[in-house]
Amino acid sequence: MDTADQLLEPLRRGHPRALARAITWMENGHPEARALMASLWPHLGRAMVIGLTGSPGAGKSTLTDQLARTLRAEGQRVGILAVDPTSPFSGGAILGDRIRMQRIAADPGIFIRSMATRGALGGLARATQDAIDLLDAANFDTVIVETVGVGQDEVDVVSCVHSCCVVLVPGMGDEIQAIKAGIMEVADLFVINKADRDGADQVEREIEAMKSLSPTRDWDPPVLRTVAAQGEGVADLLAAVRAHGAWLRTHGGLARKARERARLRFESLLAEAAVRRAKAQAGPARIEAAVRAIAEGQADPYAAVAGILGEG
Amino acid sequence: MDTADQLLEPLRRGHPRALARAITWMENGHPEARALMASLWPHLGRAMVIGLTGSPGAGKSTLTDQLARTLRAEGQRVGILAVDPTSPFSGGAILGDRIRMQRIAADPGIFIRSMATRGALGGLARATQDAIDLLDAANFDTVIVETVGVGQDEVDVVSCVHSCCVVLVPGMGDEIQAIKAGIMEVADLFVINKADRDGADQVEREIEAMKSLSPTRDWDPPVLRTVAAQGEGVADLLAAVRAHGAWLRTHGGLARKARERARLRFESLLAEAAVRRAKAQAGPARIEAAVRAIAEGQADPYAAVAGILGEG
Repeated sequence: MDTADQLLEPLRRGHPRALARAITWMENGHPEARALMASLWPHLGRAMVIGLTGSPGAGKSTLTDQLARTLRAEGQRVGILAVDPTSPFSGGAILGDRIRMQRIAADPGIFIRSMATRGALGGLARATQDAIDLLDAANFDTVIVETVGVGQDEVDVVSCVHSCCVVLVPGMGDEIQAIKAGIMEVADLFVINKADRDGADQVEREIEAMKSLSPTRDWDPPVLRTVAAQGEGVADLLAAVRAHGAWLRTHGGLARKARERARLRFESLLAEAAVRRAKAQAGPARIEAAVRAIAEGQADPYAAVAGILGEG
Repeated sequence: MDTADQLLEPLRRGHPRALARAITWMENGHPEARALMASLWPHLGRAMVIGLTGSPGAGKSTLTDQLARTLRAEGQRVGILAVDPTSPFSGGAILGDRIRMQRIAADPGIFIRSMATRGALGGLARATQDAIDLLDAANFDTVIVETVGVGQDEVDVVSCVHSCCVVLVPGMGDEIQAIKAGIMEVADLFVINKADRDGADQVEREIEAMKSLSPTRDWDPPVLRTVAAQGEGVADLLAAVRAHGAWLRTHGGLARKARERARLRFESLLAEAAVRRAKAQAGPARIEAAVRAIAEGQADPYAAVAGILGEG
């Protein structure tokens, strides 16, 4: 499985190792990544993509597991992408995800992967979009993308899924509300998880208050309640996600989401390619000299970059 | 104050409106931004930069306020940059910061600003570095950079400050620990805030366990305890930050931080400039056609970008 041609067939059959390798290719910008995407492109557009975003401790992983379990019971194949920009230095899956992977790995109808690419330029969001395509091409019916809900990369990711669920929990303090405000505009559904705790009503009031402050949208995001650890409310959440999916299909929403996703990927790949080209043209020696000059106070960063690009 | 020349003098005197305008220039890539940075460059390198990072609800804002108050009492001028990548869509300061700003705005020795630039390409980290320079040039003695502690931009920001404090609180649940693991490598100090709560000992044990798993560093990050709301432990924290600063000065740490910072800014500005140039060369019509082709399934993103860059 060293070329796109060799990977294509096992990937299309949903072979887990082929999928894992293909995602790594996309993350690392492997030379065959472009050829692989070109050959997959005609096979895309079938998978439904659900986003789950929320603060640490909101119970997103549990909710994801419950949704995946419910969809599996219906016979669906489910891909899970855990976007984790919090571990850029260790560069791998977080411990919790490793444990989850071991637990569900026995089921060939579920594929789970942590996305934690180190690298600027929106590479994490772009690689996640690529991974969604790979799962789509491998005939997964639903892809669940789980993110911590802060950071530009994460907002980019969830702004492009079909149905973005913002997960909140009662009693998390004031600062949480600020985060919620930031992702208001991309929320298609609100989920109050751990809804058996004190304060669920207050969270719901706060959501409604924020909704009333936001610009009016064609779609009014519903507020669901779950106790994911007990599986409570999961079926209703899934029904609400499907209602949103139906609304998207009848209101031009799928085309709109496709445009947003296209723009994100175009911008991100253009940036990666433009930087690669600029660096290749300048050469490593000149780049290192420029960085050194900035560090030692001999050149300001703007002038140093202009010099490298010949815009002196 | 419409040109760099006009802005320079009031900025150097620490005029708040000049500072605010200059930061906005840097955020937006104003045509005069480059000239301004060039004229400031000789005046930099005096300010001490402290980073405070941690989960929402960890009490970073309160801790920042307490540190600023203590430094003010010593006669220092303090700049506060609240990095907030969580509100990219509303594009402004979060409500809490607005309230804080009103509260402290009366003191001319404190300048506070939320950095919440919408925009990919590491622009937020780069703009924050620029803002640090502007505060430095305006003779602020200490700059405190406060971030939520997740997202690549944020890690980039705190990896470049002089002393990065990772703020934790007892009893925040398992998922929090994953976040801590991700920022282990950039922590110069650990702060257990709200240390009067149950579980402070456990958090400290977890920190020590994580430290023992990390690669050995020349600097062993100390673990401090604070109750920021009561001002407890703030003086000790400040003493520890200063001890770290002294260590940096005697162990080549300042030069190392300067190199990291130079690389971050060079990479980020190079990306911004390279993308600007690639887009200008392609022109908006061809770019919109490429995005449309991707959205409608006629071209895969890799091929579309290669086409735009003439790498077909």
